[in-house]
Amino acid sequence: MSVNAESSKTTARERLYLFDTTLRDGAQTNGIDFSLEDKIAIADMLDKLGIDYVEGGYPGANPMDTAFFQKKRTKAAAFTAFGMTKRAGRSVENDPGLQGLLQAQSDAICFVAKSWDFHVKVALATTNEENLDGIRQSVAAAVAAGKEALVDCEHFFDGYKANRDYAVACAKAAYEAGARWVVLCDTNGGTLPDEIEAIVADVTRFVPGDHLGIHAHNDTEQAVANSLAAVKAGVRQIQGTLNGIGERCGNANLVTLIPTLMLKRDYAERFEVGVSEDALSKLTQFSRSFDELLNRAPDRHAPYVGAAAFATKAGIHASAILKDPRTYEHVAPERVGNRRHVLVSDQAGKSNLVSQLKSLGIAADPSDRRLDGLLREVKEREALGYAYEAADASFSLLAMRHLGEVPKFFDVKSFRVMVERRYNAVGELVTMSEAVVKLVIDGEEHMSVAEGNGPVNALDIAMRKDLGKYQSEIENLVLMDFKVRILNGGTEAITRVLIESMDEKTDERWFTVGVSPNIVDASFQALTDSITYRLLKGAAPAA
Amino acid sequence: MSVNAESSKTTARERLYLFDTTLRDGAQTNGIDFSLEDKIAIADMLDKLGIDYVEGGYPGANPMDTAFFQKKRTKAAAFTAFGMTKRAGRSVENDPGLQGLLQAQSDAICFVAKSWDFHVKVALATTNEENLDGIRQSVAAAVAAGKEALVDCEHFFDGYKANRDYAVACAKAAYEAGARWVVLCDTNGGTLPDEIEAIVADVTRFVPGDHLGIHAHNDTEQAVANSLAAVKAGVRQIQGTLNGIGERCGNANLVTLIPTLMLKRDYAERFEVGVSEDALSKLTQFSRSFDELLNRAPDRHAPYVGAAAFATKAGIHASAILKDPRTYEHVAPERVGNRRHVLVSDQAGKSNLVSQLKSLGIAADPSDRRLDGLLREVKEREALGYAYEAADASFSLLAMRHLGEVPKFFDVKSFRVMVERRYNAVGELVTMSEAVVKLVIDGEEHMSVAEGNGPVNALDIAMRKDLGKYQSEIENLVLMDFKVRILNGGTEAITRVLIESMDEKTDERWFTVGVSPNIVDASFQALTDSITYRLLKGAAPAA
Repeated sequence: MSVNAESSKTTARERLYLFDTTLRDGAQTNGIDFSLEDKIAIADMLDKLGIDYVEGGYPGANPMDTAFFQKKRTKAAAFTAFGMTKRAGRSVENDPGLQGLLQAQSDAICFVAKSWDFHVKVALATTNEENLDGIRQSVAAAVAAGKEALVDCEHFFDGYKANRDYAVACAKAAYEAGARWVVLCDTNGGTLPDEIEAIVADVTRFVPGDHLGIHAHNDTEQAVANSLAAVKAGVRQIQGTLNGIGERCGNANLVTLIPTLMLKRDYAERFEVGVSEDALSKLTQFSRSFDELLNRAPDRHAPYVGAAAFATKAGIHASAILKDPRTYEHVAPERVGNRRHVLVSDQAGKSNLVSQLKSLGIAADPSDRRLDGLLREVKEREALGYAYEAADASFSLLAMRHLGEVPKFFDVKSFRVMVERRYNAVGELVTMSEAVVKLVIDGEEHMSVAEGNGPVNALDIAMRKDLGKYQSEIENLVLMDFKVRILNGGTEAITRVLIESMDEKTDERWFTVGVSPNIVDASFQALTDSITYRLLKGAAPAA
Repeated sequence: MSVNAESSKTTARERLYLFDTTLRDGAQTNGIDFSLEDKIAIADMLDKLGIDYVEGGYPGANPMDTAFFQKKRTKAAAFTAFGMTKRAGRSVENDPGLQGLLQAQSDAICFVAKSWDFHVKVALATTNEENLDGIRQSVAAAVAAGKEALVDCEHFFDGYKANRDYAVACAKAAYEAGARWVVLCDTNGGTLPDEIEAIVADVTRFVPGDHLGIHAHNDTEQAVANSLAAVKAGVRQIQGTLNGIGERCGNANLVTLIPTLMLKRDYAERFEVGVSEDALSKLTQFSRSFDELLNRAPDRHAPYVGAAAFATKAGIHASAILKDPRTYEHVAPERVGNRRHVLVSDQAGKSNLVSQLKSLGIAADPSDRRLDGLLREVKEREALGYAYEAADASFSLLAMRHLGEVPKFFDVKSFRVMVERRYNAVGELVTMSEAVVKLVIDGEEHMSVAEGNGPVNALDIAMRKDLGKYQSEIENLVLMDFKVRILNGGTEAITRVLIESMDEKTDERWFTVGVSPNIVDASFQALTDSITYRLLKGAAPAA
């Protein structure tokens, strides 16, 4: 199966190919270590998204990548192995690295080759001609093995500036030996869009653009711009990663590039990509699932898919957005599976409030006079330090309380938290945290005690230990994140606690807030809101 | 004071002006709420960085911004107020918003004006001609009040595409009325670099480029590229924010733009900015201090200043980097105050350490073998979450302990902190915090108890209540700030507490750190370090 076969679409648009290197270059990200299971799940995700090439790693370089390439891991995408070209001084048959690569279960091989003469000399310690020969023989061997061949020309742009003829000779050698794609890599990420465009344009005189790719890094925050500049100059393959992960500042972010290519007229009219409209409409979900797998919080400010990408705080904008959202949004959030947020803030008015409630699934009539009381309380609480824009669940509860829709599930009669540090019987210094909570449910008292890592952890465990008849409903509730902000310094400090909770079964997440001079008290408020919100949602029929 | 006056440099480079809107557009960021103290600190930071214009907010829009503009908050930078142009149907004298703006203590006023005819009609409900008239009269009023006038043309690029003549007419009206700068705003962030370049080029036919600015948003991850495309087409002012904060996906990131403009040849040869080489070499510190103030973790992958921006994980790269770093790094990390991380071994460790100790006034001989133990402990503790960069006093203590220079002033035998929430005798819900501390000084036990706003406050008061013979030495010690950061989410959370202390008499400030899964324990460590540091300094002759 080759991805070269054009689809039978009747449009005159040119095909742009997407090459994902999340599992190879992305695996170089400081702080990221994929397991084999992670790799399998990510390859499947990329396949479903409609990526043309999934680069899975470097079989032979480590046991995990070797295991990963023991079978093909994609259905539609070309499953691609990465590796070095033939070593100088060895034949193809006698190079175990290259042989391992040829035997890996992949549709394609992406060779990395030096194209900067300085590196050929210093890093490879070989001659320019031997390096060219290695490129030619490696590509030929891949093609002979029935695989598609790609060549990543490492440090191409720096190499071009140092010795144009040699860099071009490397690209040409790869192409002439039968490489389907010659990929120009800005390995250290320092090249700017204008340079990229000029250099690519020159290279197209030697290698046709529909055989050229771009591999950009984000070291000047222009990996996306550099990729698009290369497309403008003629390349027809873009390499990048999910959410822009990658070594140093990351690779070109495919999650940003895909909607730009599909939704921005200059690109959408000229090009088509392998991603369907349906997959595009799940892009936000793909991006967040990937973060989930990495166990990190999604970037709220990510283009297109961030929780704040279509969020407006300013009152003047908010009221106009309600009149005509298209004039304030560069694309419709639904197209990428995201949604509009009109934020509650001290600048907000009643129109903000109604639309915010609507987005939370709470119908409210703008003429309902209870909204005035809600707006007043929101403003009063925000002046005290509550931040409802970051705490949807606490805001929903507050609103529903004003609208009379929150039952009293439980009543906390008292709690007590103790932290003690002392030398234990064997002379070790230990710190112990213990919490006692007294709840009343339907007139019946429930008293629980728990120890924890710290006072808040102990309180959380104690509160959720015995919720009587509601216990089963909070079984899947987990505390995902806990943020503390001191709102003003010194001894008069006010503490704001934000808690992120999740239902482990449905993956639903919600955020609650508490504010107090006392950090335990602030945490208690946010914990109580989280549990109440969960019970309220559980009480309703599934949405 | 006007920033228009050119410096008397003899170079032929053109001046590019930097306009920071962290305190205005940045304040629209979802999740960010500046206090007045934050704003004062940030304005000072921007001033020191060498920004030309510091936009401080919208006096009159809310009490905090009004208070902020009660005096000028910058020394070198033009302190700039933001606000709307004159309302339709009112005279300048009769528009309280505009009058408030004219009376604010600012060097410059940046007016926001509609330049898209659709918005003039829908959002302002006025005529195109009245809108132009509002621009002219507002600019004239600012100039008459002795201020520099700027006009942000909102939605300029969308407006231009919908009605080129009207958008251009707005820009022209502002310029002809005397605006120093006409700023073309890509308000919804959806315009791509090529469009920006073409449209700006057209506008320079009507307004000279050295009176044009660009205001870009990051909705397609190209705010930096868009800013540079506009410079290429002629604008000479760039608007952006620290670390790219801002509504939705953020504004153009000045922390990325500054080094690109100063270190990349295409820009460095043509332009000069107000940022000195010395300030540039502190850019990493500026960026991280700003995150510290926002109490958020710095982005490890941020271009130029991220902890991973010059970090290499790949073995093949790492060994080559040691041979010649210049071929693997697009700029030298020292230029921006960052450093190279080769993740396999850190050879620079010990010489770094000696120079760091020197800057704290601690003389150490590089050949002193006790430094090896210190270096090892610093690395171990930093891996646990300690942040010595932000806690000079804790770092000094750690170093001096290794060098045998810290006496045991006091020993904390145990402490106990309790937080209790319950209904009191008259039925009010109250939360009470109490701490008990047992200290041993010269073999004598001192036991103190105190109540506080919260557990940490109670512990702080109890610890300082009876320090025996040292009591007089800590009389002037006050707790200035207390910051809590959760280092990893969920139930395994590690808490880092940073405490800022001050001697009220000498105004000396010092920072200490504590790390523990238990927030009370982490706070206790930082409090203990703070007191010990004070006693150590008090014991020595005044520095």
